[in-house]
Amino acid sequence: MKWPAHGSNPAHLYESLQMDQPECITDFSVNVNPYGPPPSLQANWESWLASVSDYPDPYGQTVTGQIAGLNGVTDQQVVLGNGAAELIQFLGQLWRGQKVVIAQPAFSEYEAACRVYSCEIDNVFLNKGGSLPVYELAAKAHGAAALFICTPNNPSGLAFPIEEIAQLLECLSSSGCKVVVDEAFYDFAGSSTVVPLLQDYSNLIILRSLTKMYAIAGLRIGYLLAAEPLALQIARFRPHWNVNAIALKAAETVLADPSFAERSRKRIAAERERMFQFLEKQGFQFTRSVVNFYLLRDPALEDQKPLFLFLLKKGIVLRHTYNYPGLAGRWLRASVKTELENNQLREALLEWKKHN
Amino acid sequence: MKWPAHGSNPAHLYESLQMDQPECITDFSVNVNPYGPPPSLQANWESWLASVSDYPDPYGQTVTGQIAGLNGVTDQQVVLGNGAAELIQFLGQLWRGQKVVIAQPAFSEYEAACRVYSCEIDNVFLNKGGSLPVYELAAKAHGAAALFICTPNNPSGLAFPIEEIAQLLECLSSSGCKVVVDEAFYDFAGSSTVVPLLQDYSNLIILRSLTKMYAIAGLRIGYLLAAEPLALQIARFRPHWNVNAIALKAAETVLADPSFAERSRKRIAAERERMFQFLEKQGFQFTRSVVNFYLLRDPALEDQKPLFLFLLKKGIVLRHTYNYPGLAGRWLRASVKTELENNQLREALLEWKKHN
Repeated sequence: MKWPAHGSNPAHLYESLQMDQPECITDFSVNVNPYGPPPSLQANWESWLASVSDYPDPYGQTVTGQIAGLNGVTDQQVVLGNGAAELIQFLGQLWRGQKVVIAQPAFSEYEAACRVYSCEIDNVFLNKGGSLPVYELAAKAHGAAALFICTPNNPSGLAFPIEEIAQLLECLSSSGCKVVVDEAFYDFAGSSTVVPLLQDYSNLIILRSLTKMYAIAGLRIGYLLAAEPLALQIARFRPHWNVNAIALKAAETVLADPSFAERSRKRIAAERERMFQFLEKQGFQFTRSVVNFYLLRDPALEDQKPLFLFLLKKGIVLRHTYNYPGLAGRWLRASVKTELENNQLREALLEWKKHN
Repeated sequence: MKWPAHGSNPAHLYESLQMDQPECITDFSVNVNPYGPPPSLQANWESWLASVSDYPDPYGQTVTGQIAGLNGVTDQQVVLGNGAAELIQFLGQLWRGQKVVIAQPAFSEYEAACRVYSCEIDNVFLNKGGSLPVYELAAKAHGAAALFICTPNNPSGLAFPIEEIAQLLECLSSSGCKVVVDEAFYDFAGSSTVVPLLQDYSNLIILRSLTKMYAIAGLRIGYLLAAEPLALQIARFRPHWNVNAIALKAAETVLADPSFAERSRKRIAAERERMFQFLEKQGFQFTRSVVNFYLLRDPALEDQKPLFLFLLKKGIVLRHTYNYPGLAGRWLRASVKTELENNQLREALLEWKKHN
């Protein structure tokens, strides 16, 4: 069978598996903040109706300025995208037909976008335990157009040490190889970011998303940060008005209030810790994630398919890992959701343990 | 000075011209339906808030099905875009580095997108009076990758005879040259469309926008229609989730009610006729547009800049034509707005006539 490539579309998953969809399902395959969107979004929603008729600001100047200010960079270092997916597509265009190295497993869109533009793809696998194989990456990326690193890593939720990324940037700075650091989930992990490295490395590109922390995946807005000449080169691929007016309004609103992310981070960390204690006690393996999702597995199984299907039948949708190179179904990814929802997962896992 | 390239951003225009912006301005430079958006949009707006958190359907299946049904084509012939601007960008990618011919003047995005992808651009000018130079286009497009035609034409508002487009498709069918027919404004003109030609010509690509008739330019959604293999080839460039959830909801809603477009068309036609009678009586030249905008000029001036600035000072923003190849400021474009707004333009034009 063909496994659907993405999370966040449970109906499609049940259909592909030819399984009846239970009346109630809880979707742990989607990685957005369970405490979002921020109340300010609902409070302002009605007023945004007036924005639907006018073309959005093609440069998104207000949001660009906010992002630049929050990250201590210039407006010219910011490129807004119709979600990070569009920005990744721009990167594929930039490196069309060239070699790119991907530290795998990682978000599947890097490879998908690079394939559209006939890039030669060299997958380098993370070490057992999930750390970066720094020397292997440096060697393979020498002569490549770009290296993709996702940190905190999707799917493991582990963050790589900034020193290791600095080391890679340093090694590759003279070779022309750009290093893409996808920080889509950085704000779930606290203050750790590679942004300070932008000052020293003109080969660094940082990808960010607003849709995970603020739970606005439906609105589509992401951005990238890079040195000005590189940002300018990437911005050339932006279609006019690529970020819609409602996404701009939402971004302006959520970026104005840092307390929401702070509160969410703490609540998610507490729930994550509670889940980890449970998983440990019940003998499941899991990754020591620092964000809002983690990998788990029943060590009694090599391929986790029986557990995946068992949970699906109960309406608990995890993310399979068949299309994550290097994982091949040996893990399942679960997001940290609300206490109530996490308890549903706990119950289902307990029941699994009882019968297996 | 550098003239801003687009309509619909009056503040930017006043700033570029270093002019004080009057307190009240009426923007005739933007081409959206003055009677939109449809009331159904407001009626449903609150319920759509629930869609912001989930990823949109990456295939927009419901909207795709509606569009296919309304146009009598298969779902596989429809490609949804984040506005028509994104679709034009895909076309630029498709014809990267190749020669494209543009029937000018036309929407500036064709040339802009093709330049990003290093296409060789051959501008062929419409005949005096605005008709298609069919034989010249056929000759120039022979050996080119594509020919762009905008009908009803932006900026003139004139529609080209379908037989002439059929003739071009026929001439070019064996040469491999694709013909892009941009029908962004077709629904303002009535039922005339080149869609029936899709059956016979696999080299036809039709561009459509939902943002003009339904006044949802802020939401970003457009589509193209083509033969299945060609549509599939273009769809490869779509970033995942390229159409946001609110745009999909809005499109589903507005496409379900054809009466709104019908009513708008009639009201706009009546206002347009009223303006034409006035312009004729006052000795202005204008194009016999069939849509919601037209070109006008004071025949006493070669360059319309004095009239443009006179109107701007009064807060009446028309669209200059400095960056429309072949027009070079000799015309101004005005949209058909509500009776009240059109009367403002009439008053200002009367005052101009009094002093000039």
